[in-house]
Formats: sequence, C-alpha cells, structure tokens
Amino acid sequence: MAYRTTASRIDRDQALRSRILACAHARVVEGGFAALTMQALAEDVGIATGSLYRHFGNKGELAAEVFARASQLEVDSLADVLCGEGSAAERLARGLRQFAARAWHSRRLAFALIAEPVDPEVDEQRLLYREAYAELFCRLLEDGRARGEFQVPSISLTAACLVGAIAESLVGPLSPPARALREAGQGPDELETVCANLTTFCLRALGASQPAQET
Amino acid sequence: MAYRTTASRIDRDQALRSRILACAHARVVEGGFAALTMQALAEDVGIATGSLYRHFGNKGELAAEVFARASQLEVDSLADVLCGEGSAAERLARGLRQFAARAWHSRRLAFALIAEPVDPEVDEQRLLYREAYAELFCRLLEDGRARGEFQVPSISLTAACLVGAIAESLVGPLSPPARALREAGQGPDELETVCANLTTFCLRALGASQPAQET
Repeated sequence: MAYRTTASRIDRDQALRSRILACAHARVVEGGFAALTMQALAEDVGIATGSLYRHFGNKGELAAEVFARASQLEVDSLADVLCGEGSAAERLARGLRQFAARAWHSRRLAFALIAEPVDPEVDEQRLLYREAYAELFCRLLEDGRARGEFQVPSISLTAACLVGAIAESLVGPLSPPARALREAGQGPDELETVCANLTTFCLRALGASQPAQET
Repeated sequence: MAYRTTASRIDRDQALRSRILACAHARVVEGGFAALTMQALAEDVGIATGSLYRHFGNKGELAAEVFARASQLEVDSLADVLCGEGSAAERLARGLRQFAARAWHSRRLAFALIAEPVDPEVDEQRLLYREAYAELFCRLLEDGRARGEFQVPSISLTAACLVGAIAESLVGPLSPPARALREAGQGPDELETVCANLTTFCLRALGASQPAQET
C-alpha cells in the first residue's frame, strides 16, 4: 500500500512537472525568455510560486530545461533530413530549408533559442547544442567527402563554420529589431531569398561540385 | 575653491574607475568571467566591496563594460586590416589571420568574449558587437563585389554568415575542453592550419575568383 501511494505520488509529480514545462514553453514561444518569470508561470499553471520552486530550483534551471527540450526537437528534425535520401549537397540544402522555415514560422522562439540574452544556465546549454549541431554536420561532411562531393580540408572546423554561419544568418532576420523593420514594410529578405542565399554560401564554402537541386 | 575640489574628486573617481576596469580585465584574461567576482576584484584593487558597488551597480554591469572595452579593441584592430591595402580577398585573409592569432594568444579571453556562459548584460553586448563585426564585413563585401572579386547575392546575410563562421570556428579550438585536449597531446589543429582552413572556407563561400596570397 505504501508502495502504491508513493508510485501514484511520483506520477502526479511528473504530470505536474510536464505541465509546468509545457506552460513555460508556451511563454517562451510568445515572448521569449524575458516572458518567463516564476510568478507569471505559477499563475499560468495554477499553482503557488512555492510549489514551482519545489520542481525547479530557480529560473535559470527551468529556462535551461525549456531550452534543451526545444533545441532537441530542432536537432532531431535536422538529423532526420541530413540522414535522409539523396546526395550530401541535396540533404544539406533540404536541411537548411527546413531549419530556416521552422525558425521563420516561430520567430520569437528561434531568437530565444539562438541569441536572446538570458541566464548563464541557458548559455551552457547553447554550447552543448552547438556541439550537437556540429556533430550532425561532421557526419554529413564525411559522407559528402567520401562521395567526392565536398572538398573539405578539416571536417570539424568546417562543421563549426556551418553551425556559426547558419545561426548568425538567422539571428539577423529573426531578431526583434529586424522583425519590427519588416513589419514596417522596410524589411529585409523573405524566407525564400534567405534560404537560397544561405544554401549558396554553404555549398560554395564546401567546394561542392554542383549546385544542389532542391527536392 | 568648491569647483576645484569637485574637479579633483571627479579626477580621482575616474582614476579609480579605470583601475577597477584594468584589474577586472586582468581577472577575465586569467580565468574568464567566472573569475570576476566583486569580492576578489575589490581585494585586487585594494578597496572595500562597498566602494566597488559605488562604481558598478552589479557584476553584470561591470562584466558588460569589461566585455565592451575588450571587444572594441578587437573590432578596431580588424577594421584597420580590412580597410588597409590590397585586394578585398587579401584583406580578408589578413584580417582572419590577425583575428585568429590575437585570439590564439589570449585564449581564455577570446573564449570569454565569444562564448563563455555569463550574465545577460554581456549577452546584450555580444549582440551589439556581432553587429559591429557584421558592419565591417558589409563594407569589405561591397568593395569586393564592386571590384568583381566576390560573387555575393546578399551583402548583409553573407556578412552575418562570416561573423558566425569565424566566431564558431574559434570557439571550438579555443574552448577550455579543446584546450585541455591539446595540452594532453591529442589536440586539434594548430593556428596555421585553422587560419588556412577558415580562410579557404570564407573565400570559397564568397565565390572569390582566386585564392588570396597572404601578404
């Protein structure tokens, strides 16, 4: 009996934890990490702030978990495409398009994940996830080099360059100031143009023999 | 008399502020922003912690100023080279070499500036300085395009890609884990190799017609 009580309490705890994380994610999608305050979140969940602190020691810890879950989704989505069908160049072009489109359609979240100034706990996670992205690109570059598609002297340095180029080119158009400009009708490039130019930049940098056909 | 007293007090205040910033910079050079605590810094300067807080409201504010001063030096050094003599490709190659060499010879500081997890005030500054670097590259790309050296469809997107690629490729070799590996004799590329590969990546990405001769 004691065992069942404990087990059901653990279930309830985990359910509440999931609900907290879902509400926290919704706040970040809407207003970035700036909108993620413990008090507002407790109200969304419908619990006391003190109960929130029983699940997450502080805001940084909570923000880091929201970041890690959202980023893992992006890494997994990109991995699916990069490990899919087609030449290495085609997979890279498709991966860039999907990554940019996902970011484009959830701009506030994308800016929050890539560049919003936030607690150091999130910065720690950013470094880890940049490594995860770099790891994906390493595998693609090795494959592309083995197929004779890419001329890449250093796999790891080139993978790091790709991660940086992709993130930075999306911070620009996705950042709140750029978005405000676009909404005022003086905006920079739209998604199609950004994708095409980013793909050209990356494929040329890899010494790709042929422009990739988008599939 | 009252005026002279006030003026000399302002001078003393500014001298102390400069000394605080110099000591804070030295701490970051030595151990990154993690080594920059208000208490240790007050001891270095030889003042009470309370006096430190009269000059800087909190650690984030202080760290942001240390960051901005150190970054401005890097931006100015890079600007000197990018606006110097030679073809656009040569200037880019020379700029990359100088930037990487400066980072290489002050690795702890470079990692602190580029990627160390730290207060959000520093993240804010990072975004501003990334724009400052992007601005420099925009001018170089416009010049290179006008000279027929670079084939660049979007100047601003390409500049952002360069900023990201350069920063990210240096975070790798400069980061404390990579440094530890290198010291254990299993290290990755040395400075010359990193420079050559980064330059190849960037020039190819720009569709540069010829490999730049290093001058």
